Amino acid sequence: MNFSSKLIEEAVSAFASLPGIGRKTALRLVLHLARQQPEAVEQFAEAVAKMRRGIRECERCHNLSDTPVCNICADPRRDQSLICVVEGIRDVMAIEDTGQYRGLYHVLGGVISPIEGVGPAELNIDSLIQRAQAGGVREVIMAISPTIEGETTIFYISRKLKAPGVNISTIARGISFGGELEYADELTLGRSIVARVPYKGGGEE
Amino acid sequence: MNFSSKLIEEAVSAFASLPGIGRKTALRLVLHLARQQPEAVEQFAEAVAKMRRGIRECERCHNLSDTPVCNICADPRRDQSLICVVEGIRDVMAIEDTGQYRGLYHVLGGVISPIEGVGPAELNIDSLIQRAQAGGVREVIMAISPTIEGETTIFYISRKLKAPGVNISTIARGISFGGELEYADELTLGRSIVARVPYKGGGEE
Repeated sequence: MNFSSKLIEEAVSAFASLPGIGRKTALRLVLHLARQQPEAVEQFAEAVAKMRRGIRECERCHNLSDTPVCNICADPRRDQSLICVVEGIRDVMAIEDTGQYRGLYHVLGGVISPIEGVGPAELNIDSLIQRAQAGGVREVIMAISPTIEGETTIFYISRKLKAPGVNISTIARGISFGGELEYADELTLGRSIVARVPYKGGGEE
Repeated sequence: MNFSSKLIEEAVSAFASLPGIGRKTALRLVLHLARQQPEAVEQFAEAVAKMRRGIRECERCHNLSDTPVCNICADPRRDQSLICVVEGIRDVMAIEDTGQYRGLYHVLGGVISPIEGVGPAELNIDSLIQRAQAGGVREVIMAISPTIEGETTIFYISRKLKAPGVNISTIARGISFGGELEYADELTLGRSIVARVPYKGGGEE
């Protein structure tokens, strides 16, 4: 692309360095910003810079946080005896959005994947074991994607995590609500038959 | 979406205010930036803020520019007797990308559209007339989209622009190079037959 403006060119390059943003999209965004009030654009830039300056990992659960301990870990109304283990912070948000969980989290930062060179040492597993063994925890819920790497990670953690009185569970797997059987993959459908649950009348379990 | 971090939430809102960026995409971008080096993110924010602080309209052609007169207008190697009239700055970039034009531009800032409340007074038409009448201009090329509004705009300008020795032309219209006749719209195909040009042997005209 041929820019007659160096300023536009640099801003386009900045946006185009973001994942999933090509140079055409970047140009569209920059031309939009060029038309906005200067104060609005300063605010945009400041929100981004401020975020990176202030953001850190929660020292307990490794979620992104504005403070040394994140809002969720610091909330006394949450059930401190439940730890939900997830791969990433997006999973925390997804589970929070359901409104169905009031315990704490532990963000692993990925799953064990020998192909991608991710071993247990690269993940936040040691701190999870320490949290579970420190007492006060009655259940560790594995909310990890049901892939080969995910299952390996669950298996590894379940072996390491030997703490008295701590149960390990995984989230329920099966056919999605509203999903049609004929379109479900064979593995999910097959396992959902093997792992069938007793029918308990009209409502959900 | 449920953010445990106010900083993330504000940065997501900032990105989600951009056109075509939803909250999920905004979150993806913010989480990407949260993982980058702080200096890289400062640079990103600074490139955006600096662009808006420094950018202005070229006082001659109304193209976006870092300086009072843009690089194109200020370039002595360009043909000062040709003015290509376009709707927006993206058209300038598109024509520059072809490498086929070495004259100057004039950015109207839109086309006459009574439905959208855009009249001649809202566009940079007066300054175009002044440029053409100031002398030294031999041709004004209308590179305006062939829509009803575009044609109206061309007609309006052609009536206003009465300067001795200044020719008015429009860019060639017809079937795209590489385009297949059967997929061309009727209007384009019909007009391309009416406005047929003599065949001049093997090369392009």
